[in-house]
Amino acid sequence: MSMSLDGFVAGPDDGPGLPLGHGGELLHQWVYEQASWRARHGLVGGRTGPDDDLVAEGFSRIGAVVMGRRMFDNAEGPWGDSPPFHAPVFVLTHRPRPVVVKPDGTTFTFVTDGPECALRQARELAGPMDVAVAGGADVIRQYLRARLLDEIQIHLVHVLLNDGVRLFGHLGPDYLSLERTRVLDAPGVTHLRFLVETTGEDREPPETALF
Amino acid sequence: MSMSLDGFVAGPDDGPGLPLGHGGELLHQWVYEQASWRARHGLVGGRTGPDDDLVAEGFSRIGAVVMGRRMFDNAEGPWGDSPPFHAPVFVLTHRPRPVVVKPDGTTFTFVTDGPECALRQARELAGPMDVAVAGGADVIRQYLRARLLDEIQIHLVHVLLNDGVRLFGHLGPDYLSLERTRVLDAPGVTHLRFLVETTGEDREPPETALF
Repeated sequence: MSMSLDGFVAGPDDGPGLPLGHGGELLHQWVYEQASWRARHGLVGGRTGPDDDLVAEGFSRIGAVVMGRRMFDNAEGPWGDSPPFHAPVFVLTHRPRPVVVKPDGTTFTFVTDGPECALRQARELAGPMDVAVAGGADVIRQYLRARLLDEIQIHLVHVLLNDGVRLFGHLGPDYLSLERTRVLDAPGVTHLRFLVETTGEDREPPETALF
Repeated sequence: MSMSLDGFVAGPDDGPGLPLGHGGELLHQWVYEQASWRARHGLVGGRTGPDDDLVAEGFSRIGAVVMGRRMFDNAEGPWGDSPPFHAPVFVLTHRPRPVVVKPDGTTFTFVTDGPECALRQARELAGPMDVAVAGGADVIRQYLRARLLDEIQIHLVHVLLNDGVRLFGHLGPDYLSLERTRVLDAPGVTHLRFLVETTGEDREPPETALF
């Protein structure tokens, strides 16, 4: 997920006509420039380098995708016949809909039995590859709350967006410890990768006061 | 500021008996271990290395401090006669109070004329050194909103705290661009330094849709 330093993954007033909300496109500028992202979207050109390697690696690991219905509804129009997944996608929803098959290999299957069921189906099709939870924020929080996410990748974008859709917060009474497994500094963005480590462990209290 | 990945700088229910709120001490574990922080607080031992150099550099640049009254009130007890500033501190407040002089060189001056006045007084005494805005979150947001902060240092702690006091958000209608000037990865924390760059500039819209 691309997230502003103040924790937003989309601007305010997102919807089918404005999938990333006002200003939300600022969070994705860095990826639009990457050669492997562009190739995935049928565009030529773009930059190569560590950022691009990271994007390409991410694509190469994804065997199946889970997303929320709001994200799907916001993006179905812009994606058209070329959604960028080239993999089975499971859409969490309360409103059933027949499977959508796209010519590029993407299929959208609508799951009404909840996040665990969607994940189970995705895992079966992903085989040894990863299942990516693509969003939106509420779906990611559901998986975090259920302790079903192994890894979080944050592309921390160097902007304070000030308003919009927050990714994190209010997951439950316990804190979640993370182990950072990668940091890559790039122009306008710091790429961070974390393993979701342990939950609610007691730690030693600090021995002294604050600065 | 030490901030969790989900944007909190203190846990919930902070107050004079619990200056960092529930779980907030998790955000500061990394600094309690640093030799220069310990020396500043009259403690022996601690670790040296890049983290510690960063803390020492921070201390060495501070010529004066501004903070909010709530932060002062929460911490006055724990600090006792040894607050860690060794510099003039200006406390933003609506409730006047005589200057407090501590034996270690720290003075607390209570300013009722607003953030710009407090900053002006701090700048005069800081000379060529930096004025640090120590917190709390509401005071930092006031200075950001007034475009009076040149630099932001975030110690991004690898935890999702889930609740508490957020540092950022809702500063105004315009976004704030940041330029990252340092990234240092350390155990449990990623140190980020930003210049506050420009405000509300128009940028090119993205040329294509989302991932």
